[in-house]
Amino acid sequence: MNAPSIESYIPPERLLMGPGPSNMDPRVLSALSRPVVGHLDPGFVAFMDDLKELLRYAFQTKNAMTLPISAPGSAGMELCFVNLVEAGDQVVVCRNGVFGGRMLENVKRTRGLPIIIDDDWGRPVDPNQLEDALKANPDAKLVASVHAETSTGARSDVQTLAGIAHEHDCLIIVDTVTSLGGIPLEVDAWGLDAVYSGSQKCLSCTPGLSPVTFSERALAKVRARREAVQSWFLDLNLLNAYWDDGQNQRSYHHTAPVHTLMALHESLAILAAEGLEAAHARHRAAHEQLRDGLAPLGIEYLVDAEWRLPQLNSVIVPAALQEREAAIRRALLDEDGIEIGAGLGDLAGKIWRIGTMGYTARSENITRLLSALAGRL
Amino acid sequence: MNAPSIESYIPPERLLMGPGPSNMDPRVLSALSRPVVGHLDPGFVAFMDDLKELLRYAFQTKNAMTLPISAPGSAGMELCFVNLVEAGDQVVVCRNGVFGGRMLENVKRTRGLPIIIDDDWGRPVDPNQLEDALKANPDAKLVASVHAETSTGARSDVQTLAGIAHEHDCLIIVDTVTSLGGIPLEVDAWGLDAVYSGSQKCLSCTPGLSPVTFSERALAKVRARREAVQSWFLDLNLLNAYWDDGQNQRSYHHTAPVHTLMALHESLAILAAEGLEAAHARHRAAHEQLRDGLAPLGIEYLVDAEWRLPQLNSVIVPAALQEREAAIRRALLDEDGIEIGAGLGDLAGKIWRIGTMGYTARSENITRLLSALAGRL
Repeated sequence: MNAPSIESYIPPERLLMGPGPSNMDPRVLSALSRPVVGHLDPGFVAFMDDLKELLRYAFQTKNAMTLPISAPGSAGMELCFVNLVEAGDQVVVCRNGVFGGRMLENVKRTRGLPIIIDDDWGRPVDPNQLEDALKANPDAKLVASVHAETSTGARSDVQTLAGIAHEHDCLIIVDTVTSLGGIPLEVDAWGLDAVYSGSQKCLSCTPGLSPVTFSERALAKVRARREAVQSWFLDLNLLNAYWDDGQNQRSYHHTAPVHTLMALHESLAILAAEGLEAAHARHRAAHEQLRDGLAPLGIEYLVDAEWRLPQLNSVIVPAALQEREAAIRRALLDEDGIEIGAGLGDLAGKIWRIGTMGYTARSENITRLLSALAGRL
Repeated sequence: MNAPSIESYIPPERLLMGPGPSNMDPRVLSALSRPVVGHLDPGFVAFMDDLKELLRYAFQTKNAMTLPISAPGSAGMELCFVNLVEAGDQVVVCRNGVFGGRMLENVKRTRGLPIIIDDDWGRPVDPNQLEDALKANPDAKLVASVHAETSTGARSDVQTLAGIAHEHDCLIIVDTVTSLGGIPLEVDAWGLDAVYSGSQKCLSCTPGLSPVTFSERALAKVRARREAVQSWFLDLNLLNAYWDDGQNQRSYHHTAPVHTLMALHESLAILAAEGLEAAHARHRAAHEQLRDGLAPLGIEYLVDAEWRLPQLNSVIVPAALQEREAAIRRALLDEDGIEIGAGLGDLAGKIWRIGTMGYTARSENITRLLSALAGRL
């Protein structure tokens, strides 16, 4: 076979205001261009401890088992299910969007027995429904819920859900892919047991990593498993042999993605320097500026004010524009260089998802989008 | 919790002559520092087609199903097993090092029935043993073998193994993590069915991606599955809905790691411009220079000349040096800035694994290592 002649790829410059990835701080891009180092290098091992410490701050947890998985958020989700679910375990899945549906798929593929509670897309998970489901299924072992549904822009009160789960002797798995760094998230204070996130949303790192954290309660269930975890790559005990700082013995498990890890370290160091409260306030301010600018354009929110995610604004495409919905997004992208997100599933064609996440959540970006959007309607 | 105060991480500058990662071409580092782009951006989708075309050249295949998995080589291995093995399938695993053992672990976790054939570490897989195993187990569905054992530096004749597998109506899964780009590998001409590799060895890209390719025969077995693939993240049909270029309909599956993909594209474009034959010749030349320089130091190879990998030189630590083995590696790292690899498993403390992979396989690097090593013995 002949060699193809293909030139270097120069990506287009975009203002990324979709559901992720968000734009990256130049400091993080700079971290990506540093020399490669061995994943077992003593210097890199010290760096790993700092990275775990930074993740604990972002998650607000003291959990020893806090580390980034070497794959995107979908793999972090799968890690939680394959380690915690055993064949025949009853798992209550709270579904109010695409990612609750993906959790359900994970329960099936780990041979758990799913119990589904559904809420309307755009609404939070209803704690009363969870309470009822657990009363009706006293053998349930796990509850799974999304904190910030990326498909709808709705927040759920996972602190209350965790309390209900624990009253019924269940552990809770929580998806924080879109919440981490953007809105308050208190893993320890809220009693969340197994939590996964993504690098490319409010952390504004490059996509490809999934931070996870496990409580001692969750680790006890993993240790008590009767069968091996079905995934070798996502087996928490094997992963921990590489990441553990207890013995300072780093056993090879897989070759760590050193560049994306260096980028995550830089993103988290930036977050720690800003402080979580200031980062949350910056996301709220961006959201309010956007909301106040969309109102005069006749664009309203899908989600009630109380449950809206400031970092992911799901807005209803006005009826008169629905026919041109895709064309408007395409013109924003091609002519204005701005990416916004389409609706997923039943909401396709009906909503836009406007991300104001991480480094993107700055006033000048909101102004630029509002100005461009006004010109396209 | 208070925010930790942690500064930017500046990695040490290393000459990477271990079992991977290898050093990266500055062009690839530069690709890593380009702006982030959305994983569903039309510009990025065109880039994905080029990336697949470049991968097909590297693998020497016309397989439509050729794509990079968004996780390291261990996940690429797992992808092959979870898609191809069904509960109860007999799988012959050829084990002559650590990675054959990992394949065995994957067969167990997919509830396959492993049939193990063992060869001594440092020796190639014996085709006669495979023939005997398949005669004795006429219901076997799959054969799994490593092309270039990273733990021992031995090559196996996977073309011959594939022929035997096919005679017995088996498919063959082949690990090419350390071979791709370093030695001849002809996926189509040799009839390999499911092949995975890694980004950070002879391709000299950053770690974190696993190129895979599946033959039509292998895809037919995946399509005929009775049960869903146990991994959602590694389900080939779901992945292909994002990567497929047939319909030009890219369905969201997971957020692609855009930076590492841009880096892989750049690495493969460099390889295509050099040409596979020239790249193989460069690896051979580096190996010969190293071998000729090690001989006067009394350092001999573990593997017979016929089966030696030019890109991964497993050499026996002379008996007089075995006590200082780890100290010598540490001095090379700390004082000379050169990483070489230790032995794994039974070979720990007994061998060194000296990588001459990808961008590292250049004469000046061999000279530098030989000079440093001579000073440490």
